[in-house]
Amino acid sequence: MQRKLGAQTLVFPNRPCIIAGATVVGPEEGEGPLADYYDLIIDDQLYGQKSWEASERSMMKTAVGLAVENAGLSKERIDFMLAGDLLNQLVSCNFAARDLEIPLLGLYGACSTFAQALGLAAAFVDADYATHAIAAVSSHYGTSERQFRFPTEYGGQRPPSAQHTVTGSGAALVAQVKADICITHFTIGKVLDLGIKDPYDMGSAMAPAAADTLQRHLLDSGRKVDDYDLILTGDLAAVGKKIMLELMQQASVQMATKYDDCGCLIYDRERQQVFAGGSGCACSAVVTLGPILNKMKKGELGRVLLIATGALLSPLTYQQGESIPGIAHAVALEHSSLEGGN
Amino acid sequence: MQRKLGAQTLVFPNRPCIIAGATVVGPEEGEGPLADYYDLIIDDQLYGQKSWEASERSMMKTAVGLAVENAGLSKERIDFMLAGDLLNQLVSCNFAARDLEIPLLGLYGACSTFAQALGLAAAFVDADYATHAIAAVSSHYGTSERQFRFPTEYGGQRPPSAQHTVTGSGAALVAQVKADICITHFTIGKVLDLGIKDPYDMGSAMAPAAADTLQRHLLDSGRKVDDYDLILTGDLAAVGKKIMLELMQQASVQMATKYDDCGCLIYDRERQQVFAGGSGCACSAVVTLGPILNKMKKGELGRVLLIATGALLSPLTYQQGESIPGIAHAVALEHSSLEGGN
Repeated sequence: MQRKLGAQTLVFPNRPCIIAGATVVGPEEGEGPLADYYDLIIDDQLYGQKSWEASERSMMKTAVGLAVENAGLSKERIDFMLAGDLLNQLVSCNFAARDLEIPLLGLYGACSTFAQALGLAAAFVDADYATHAIAAVSSHYGTSERQFRFPTEYGGQRPPSAQHTVTGSGAALVAQVKADICITHFTIGKVLDLGIKDPYDMGSAMAPAAADTLQRHLLDSGRKVDDYDLILTGDLAAVGKKIMLELMQQASVQMATKYDDCGCLIYDRERQQVFAGGSGCACSAVVTLGPILNKMKKGELGRVLLIATGALLSPLTYQQGESIPGIAHAVALEHSSLEGGN
Repeated sequence: MQRKLGAQTLVFPNRPCIIAGATVVGPEEGEGPLADYYDLIIDDQLYGQKSWEASERSMMKTAVGLAVENAGLSKERIDFMLAGDLLNQLVSCNFAARDLEIPLLGLYGACSTFAQALGLAAAFVDADYATHAIAAVSSHYGTSERQFRFPTEYGGQRPPSAQHTVTGSGAALVAQVKADICITHFTIGKVLDLGIKDPYDMGSAMAPAAADTLQRHLLDSGRKVDDYDLILTGDLAAVGKKIMLELMQQASVQMATKYDDCGCLIYDRERQQVFAGGSGCACSAVVTLGPILNKMKKGELGRVLLIATGALLSPLTYQQGESIPGIAHAVALEHSSLEGGN
């Protein structure tokens, strides 16, 4: 491969495949419009544990276990786990990997972590560093709110731009085995900062990074929006999605009917009290590995570009008066039957 | 490459090289025995900034800038930055990457992050995903103490097993260009937990992971301890180093005079009030990129195995009664003249 100066995209000539995916979600997600597509809907936020944190890591363990089981493998066959979550010191994936006994690379890109993990797992498999690599993320409404904003018990009011952190976990098993869905590109984003300082407006903080990563992906890959059946951002939700569309229009890139956002798809905003929509690492993971993978397998979607978006919000730097930068990483998924196309 | 089941080691046939390294340290590290080997010693912990956090990220920016400069390049030539730090939400590397405008993959492995970043940078260069990748980490005594234990202003007493977080940053530029030092192996560790619950005894929490990763590395690579001139753990310090030696003795692996620990080397424990020794992401980074690289370039050390060690301590899970798991990742460095040897 001859790298262009400034290229941000890894191309995978060996077309590593997602041989299995698994999704575990919380009760609110289970009442949403995508409920039919999840592997497991848990009854309550605690999932039989003593704390939300223990519940979150338990969901990740279950998701990884289900993905391995769905592939008909045992966990000893998994070479590496590339994983992350939103909690300080990545306690969800660290404790999950401890119990799973799979070698771990811990990743943090806020809510962009799913694309980061999936892209790195694909890179490991494509480069023959692994035969089986698992990408996993988790998030939880209760753990996130108390870490990033206020404990939910405090009952603070939320503005319409606020998003609702998805309770759930998604795991994708990437392998050197042919399967329906393969990963062809991984575009690694830059940290962008337009000076947003409101921790209840993550969509606005992330949209510029999503627009930048999409443009970079199109430039690097030589593709156009029309080469995709769907371009899917991670969790911009209603406020960020609107900004994303405006930014792409300013860049003269027509998104037309090809674009949607996982944060807008996961809940029914009319019926569920989720404000602008969903967010959290698990948002893009469970939407991608649930309904999107299902539609790709059935041939309803051929090529999908997932642009997972992360608001690099930190309570500490926020309290020190700093703004909230954003980052977005993109992973191109493709039905294996399309091999040889552009 | 035919992967063995359970192998945890990536082998790099293209022998990616460290074409430049840079180290920035704080005043206490600058008074330590390795002072002559650092690129920059800052005068005070604030480094001209308003907060320790701003100081820490500023050090990382300086270290990356110096590494790029030492290689005679401009930062536009750097494809990707693989970086991490100890602060919640990785605010040091996120803000540094924002200002540097280099695409970022954020990593968290506590104090093992330097080996994780260096190993991934080597993997990216070896697999032709990047021509130039920078691995960077930072830590800071002031930011770490207040996040993980107590603010230093509180004046809490520290037991002899406590370690002193290194203030500093190290950056290594890995490239597809021949240079004196190359990276041949990357062993990715498992999360191990022997039930340590004392946040002032990180060495005991990390030593089992270091011993496990070393044994795994030797098994995967077919190497013996004697194939290395130095085996260097990241920051076990005096307490953990002793446990590491005992664990290796139990495993019948003779470490003899080949073994040392960055946390023991960085300070003069007789003269400086650092208790068991140094810790923090920057500890293994500045020792490796300072004195070790210097000795390798001069031919005094041919092969070095760095095993960076991380205590996955979280104030939240600690307060919830959980233990402190550990992880260790290893990177094998080699003088380029040794090519073809075992």
